[in-house]
Amino acid sequence: MLNKIHNAIDELYPEMVEIRRYLHQHPELSFQETKTAQYIADFYEQLGIPYQTNVGGKGVVATLKGAKPGKTVALRADFDALPIQDEKDVPYKSKIPGVMHACGHDGHTATLLILAKAMKQFQGELAGTIVFLHQHAEEYAPGGAKPMIEDGAIRLVDAVFGTHLWATTPLGKLQIAKDVMMAGADRFEIVVQGKGGHGAYPHETKDAIVIASQLVTELQQIVSRRLDPLETAVVTVGIFHAGNAFNIIADSAEISGTVRYLNTDVQKKVIEEMKKIIKGVCLANDVTCDFTYSKGYPPLVNHKREASLVMEAGKHIKQIDAIEEVKPFMAGEDFAYYLIEKPGAYFFTGAMKEGHTYPHHHPKFDFDERAMATAAKTLIGAYSAFQDKK
Amino acid sequence: MLNKIHNAIDELYPEMVEIRRYLHQHPELSFQETKTAQYIADFYEQLGIPYQTNVGGKGVVATLKGAKPGKTVALRADFDALPIQDEKDVPYKSKIPGVMHACGHDGHTATLLILAKAMKQFQGELAGTIVFLHQHAEEYAPGGAKPMIEDGAIRLVDAVFGTHLWATTPLGKLQIAKDVMMAGADRFEIVVQGKGGHGAYPHETKDAIVIASQLVTELQQIVSRRLDPLETAVVTVGIFHAGNAFNIIADSAEISGTVRYLNTDVQKKVIEEMKKIIKGVCLANDVTCDFTYSKGYPPLVNHKREASLVMEAGKHIKQIDAIEEVKPFMAGEDFAYYLIEKPGAYFFTGAMKEGHTYPHHHPKFDFDERAMATAAKTLIGAYSAFQDKK
Amino acid sequence: MLNKIHNAIDELYPEMVEIRRYLHQHPELSFQETKTAQYIADFYEQLGIPYQTNVGGKGVVATLKGAKPGKTVALRADFDALPIQDEKDVPYKSKIPGVMHACGHDGHTATLLILAKAMKQFQGELAGTIVFLHQHAEEYAPGGAKPMIEDGAIRLVDAVFGTHLWATTPLGKLQIAKDVMMAGADRFEIVVQGKGGHGAYPHETKDAIVIASQLVTELQQIVSRRLDPLETAVVTVGIFHAGNAFNIIADSAEISGTVRYLNTDVQKKVIEEMKKIIKGVCLANDVTCDFTYSKGYPPLVNHKREASLVMEAGKHIKQIDAIEEVKPFMAGEDFAYYLIEKPGAYFFTGAMKEGHTYPHHHPKFDFDERAMATAAKTLIGAYSAFQDKK
Amino acid sequence: MLNKIHNAIDELYPEMVEIRRYLHQHPELSFQETKTAQYIADFYEQLGIPYQTNVGGKGVVATLKGAKPGKTVALRADFDALPIQDEKDVPYKSKIPGVMHACGHDGHTATLLILAKAMKQFQGELAGTIVFLHQHAEEYAPGGAKPMIEDGAIRLVDAVFGTHLWATTPLGKLQIAKDVMMAGADRFEIVVQGKGGHGAYPHETKDAIVIASQLVTELQQIVSRRLDPLETAVVTVGIFHAGNAFNIIADSAEISGTVRYLNTDVQKKVIEEMKKIIKGVCLANDVTCDFTYSKGYPPLVNHKREASLVMEAGKHIKQIDAIEEVKPFMAGEDFAYYLIEKPGAYFFTGAMKEGHTYPHHHPKFDFDERAMATAAKTLIGAYSAFQDKK
Repeated sequence: MLNKIHNAIDELYPEMVEIRRYLHQHPELSFQETKTAQYIADFYEQLGIPYQTNVGGKGVVATLKGAKPGKTVALRADFDALPIQDEKDVPYKSKIPGVMHACGHDGHTATLLILAKAMKQFQGELAGTIVFLHQHAEEYAPGGAKPMIEDGAIRLVDAVFGTHLWATTPLGKLQIAKDVMMAGADRFEIVVQGKGGHGAYPHETKDAIVIASQLVTELQQIVSRRLDPLETAVVTVGIFHAGNAFNIIADSAEISGTVRYLNTDVQKKVIEEMKKIIKGVCLANDVTCDFTYSKGYPPLVNHKREASLVMEAGKHIKQIDAIEEVKPFMAGEDFAYYLIEKPGAYFFTGAMKEGHTYPHHHPKFDFDERAMATAAKTLIGAYSAFQDKK
Repeated sequence: MLNKIHNAIDELYPEMVEIRRYLHQHPELSFQETKTAQYIADFYEQLGIPYQTNVGGKGVVATLKGAKPGKTVALRADFDALPIQDEKDVPYKSKIPGVMHACGHDGHTATLLILAKAMKQFQGELAGTIVFLHQHAEEYAPGGAKPMIEDGAIRLVDAVFGTHLWATTPLGKLQIAKDVMMAGADRFEIVVQGKGGHGAYPHETKDAIVIASQLVTELQQIVSRRLDPLETAVVTVGIFHAGNAFNIIADSAEISGTVRYLNTDVQKKVIEEMKKIIKGVCLANDVTCDFTYSKGYPPLVNHKREASLVMEAGKHIKQIDAIEEVKPFMAGEDFAYYLIEKPGAYFFTGAMKEGHTYPHHHPKFDFDERAMATAAKTLIGAYSAFQDKK
Repeated sequence: MLNKIHNAIDELYPEMVEIRRYLHQHPELSFQETKTAQYIADFYEQLGIPYQTNVGGKGVVATLKGAKPGKTVALRADFDALPIQDEKDVPYKSKIPGVMHACGHDGHTATLLILAKAMKQFQGELAGTIVFLHQHAEEYAPGGAKPMIEDGAIRLVDAVFGTHLWATTPLGKLQIAKDVMMAGADRFEIVVQGKGGHGAYPHETKDAIVIASQLVTELQQIVSRRLDPLETAVVTVGIFHAGNAFNIIADSAEISGTVRYLNTDVQKKVIEEMKKIIKGVCLANDVTCDFTYSKGYPPLVNHKREASLVMEAGKHIKQIDAIEEVKPFMAGEDFAYYLIEKPGAYFFTGAMKEGHTYPHHHPKFDFDERAMATAAKTLIGAYSAFQDKK
Repeated sequence: MLNKIHNAIDELYPEMVEIRRYLHQHPELSFQETKTAQYIADFYEQLGIPYQTNVGGKGVVATLKGAKPGKTVALRADFDALPIQDEKDVPYKSKIPGVMHACGHDGHTATLLILAKAMKQFQGELAGTIVFLHQHAEEYAPGGAKPMIEDGAIRLVDAVFGTHLWATTPLGKLQIAKDVMMAGADRFEIVVQGKGGHGAYPHETKDAIVIASQLVTELQQIVSRRLDPLETAVVTVGIFHAGNAFNIIADSAEISGTVRYLNTDVQKKVIEEMKKIIKGVCLANDVTCDFTYSKGYPPLVNHKREASLVMEAGKHIKQIDAIEEVKPFMAGEDFAYYLIEKPGAYFFTGAMKEGHTYPHHHPKFDFDERAMATAAKTLIGAYSAFQDKK
């Protein structure tokens, strides 16, 4: 039956492209995806597949019950866009100034909608139940996955699968890890409250720039000295802002950054060590420092068995010529939350456009649309494999 | 005769206050002081003292030739204001939004104008020539002093005296140094051009924040290790701006600051050492760094003999109860240029307002207006002492 | 037949202990193991197994040819001791002051000698050839493995196996990795040649301590910023020596340390980045720096297939109750060289002594001698499994 | 009469040289100068000038009472040597291995002894009383001056003068300051007690070298940021010792150094800031740090009036062709204690040997012996001027 589904997907491919391009021209920022959510709802309405809107916010969840008994499997696609100005020169360029589908979520949505349409045709032959999870707000923590889960979106589900079209991976390649697939990603802010003053009288001040510079330097030691060399972590300071005048000693300095990690013990240790360093440096300089640490998405840890099912499914898809086990990606992804609750796996579907090397979140980002069909086939393949598995 | 002049100044004091308050309400920024210059010119026009406008820019130079032979002495007052919003609650508050006489140059101008008016009365008894130097643009390097000198303002002058009403020094106190009185003040900018990238992939980037933090730290060694401990220098970084997103490694970092010094050998050494450090740190990190060093006003070095004359003059002024020899102030002042060309001295006239402790350049800055009369008396006293000196 | 061999080993166990204890009392430092080599040679002489001495230095290689055809497999034991004073209170304590078998190489040797004696009994039933590799000088780079290989010790060999008795792993546990098992370990030295002088006149000097402190700080960034967070590396400065008098600025500073890594790309990158940092810091301080980098043992990378054979072999040994796949150990081991030339695997045989927690290289180090029998059984098990494998 | 004394000194010059060379060959370390003290005592014994030995330790104080009334003035010479191996090739080279008069104290003693011999001749004409202060242990804090004062050596004295033969100042030049002449000099030690461990496992340790390097770096900010730029201070780390093995993370690090300052407010501030920095850095790294700060000699502050007397006296000495007012020297000198108790002044007598540029404390140090006569004349000149002064 998988072959028939694959054929159906191929037949529906032009509509898939059409949907993707429509969405690409009408992107909406995270938590503001009202029209996109409506578009998705309308689609299921027309298909006659029951669905629920406003799940955990703007989420849309549709449920296709097969005629035969079986497991319930959720397939997830996210649908928010980014605050980036589209700089591509294509007919389907974004029509919204400063907003752009620069991460391929338009493609994820088109993939899932067309897969639903295809599956609807086979509802009579279908074993088990497919839950189509259309998730809002993946790009912006705390994200849409968590509230959708809290709203019951996967309560009755036995497994969850999802994919990301990946523009820097060749078309035809599928990438997956059997363990950690993506990193935990947190945010921190440190405000050094020194004492400003005339640039010529440093002894009457507490120079926030010198102090914050020390902090940046000392933070390097967390990774170099305080973590097990076999563990993985990143502590990056992305912003350092202090001072308004070249000849005035800055009153305060604001630095903020991100922490990446693959397991929560490391995360805990990093936070502890940051606290120590900040406290010590500030004491050494007799200033106060505010430290805010915001935990973001946890590491995305694939379930071994379900990851194997995806790899197995990939083998039966003509368009896939390589299946690669990969090391973790250091980026974050709130699909992680689904995998904390349920078995499942997340994978990358190669979508590199020939002669086109712009990475995700780039103003000229684009992907090879044929990857959407491959993604749809792999997702339904994983679904099918999961049903077969005892 | 000095007594008679002092009396005349006291009689004209109400007009002095009036002029100061008018100017206080109509401040103009450096290099844009068109109306102030016109006001000054009109004043001399009415007095019948010959004057020249547009000297080296917006400068006004008036010349009062005494009936008796003698030396030519210039007395200088600067007349520009600052980009600060006046926050005082007084009737003579600035009428120009965002512009304010927050450094007392309005007082300097009123002092000199009324001194001219007083002296005009004694022209028949006057020995020598007084040059009234009304200088624009002291607050903003490269300043007005240099172009006025280049335009010939002090070519025929034998000595130059000037004063600053000093709001944090008690009324009745005169402060002066017999050598360096104010520091040289330069500006620098360093742009670290790293390589930006994803916050989770530091190895693909050259982290401009980490590099610039090193620079800030290393720059401390110029003063701590590379200069003679008996010399004086300050290297302050006042601005550190880098990065726009907490999870993106910053592409570049901009830091800028000021250098203060009391002699040019130290200035030269600081520049050399900055160059070495910047070059080394950038090489260590394989990035390029742009270093711009702009020399500002040189140190203001009083001439010993003329400083003694000011101190001598101060002793004969009732309102002065303390004459203090001071260490250098680390602020800069373009009066320095006059003293490179001619003998002379610069001093501070105590102008602290009772119960009022706002420093210069503060939005609530003000001074005790009586200090203007004291300043006028000291200036003419120095003039007189210089004439008497063989 | 494996059962019969295992029984033979158990029977010979008292002699194994006797040998180990004799060697423990007569330790010899790396490259000076003349008597130990002679002891080993004498043993094979008595057994009637042909052997060769002075292989690549002090190495001894004995060869037992089986009656049946088969592969040639080398089993390796190292036999040097350490410059440590034995502080144990046992009858078999070292008799050589300041020299001690504090790493278990005495046990390795006893294991291999008794295994040879056991196997000699079964020579008639034996398929293939066992090469007993008794290696000198493992503790001290450049080590004995490399010259033994260059001297032909494993030229005719099809695979090499080796083990380390591991005193911090419980008895009965076998630890092995299917990929990198132990790290590459290099050594570096940096001499900062500054300019000394009177402690009160820093500007006349180039302060080697301040400069070397910068170096130590900047070296932290190699791991924190310049390497892929998913890679593993350690850059440790173990020695920092500078200065002889508290009030004299140090002329030079010597720092030395170790680099650990798991693959040579990382090693290469670390060296490159060290060079950059040293060059930059020295330029920033206008001094010369000598940098000596000595490559030590490369990472020990097990061959997947042979590691699996060891794990398989372990399953058939009564005394082994746990077989654990482990992450790499950051210590170095010159068994690495054998695995660059030939297939093979290295593993840890749990040898923790009850109530005894001293780590390797500790003056009170000891191990549970029963682990020697387990090690012998696993080695011959791996040999046997390798013969069976097609 | 001064002329007569000067002639007498010139006549006795050969004996002065003889004494100096004898002492040069028989140097004794600070607090161990038994034979030197005896030598001095014997000299006064022979002269018939009353003296006291064991003053505050090994000090010798002789008193010459003039026939006429007058003030009591002490003249001081120190007599200890240094732990340096004499590397000069001269007949009067040190006979004591590893001990050397490398600072000219032999010359100071010869100067004072011969001055005493000369003055004895004029006792009948002498007004006032000369106290010859022969001080032990100047080179090694806490020094000999303090205990000699406590033992009453200058209780009855009206003024104290002293000089240092200065080998890097030209013969014929006299150097003196009217205020601070020499710096305060303290000593500090910091022990960072981290946690040692295997060089490959930094996360299990607290790396004392990395922490102490931070300390060295942060200490730079005391001078660069926390002190008034117009003040003078030096914070030098002269020793940094940590670690014994390149591949072991150091357990502890010892750093020690010196602080120089010109007034006690600065000293106090430096100590406060050191404490803050050490506390903060150690907290940031979760280690303990021991901080020992030993105050040494205070700044040597000349009394203005007495310094002027020395300058005045210098003008009447043929051999002096330049009298220079100097900035403070950053070295320390326990003559400082005398000037805390009594009026007086300390000066440098130029003693540069032609074609010889070795500084004080150098193994090849030497000076032009003619400077001793000049020193004697200046000391007695200052004595004389002090008597004349009302």
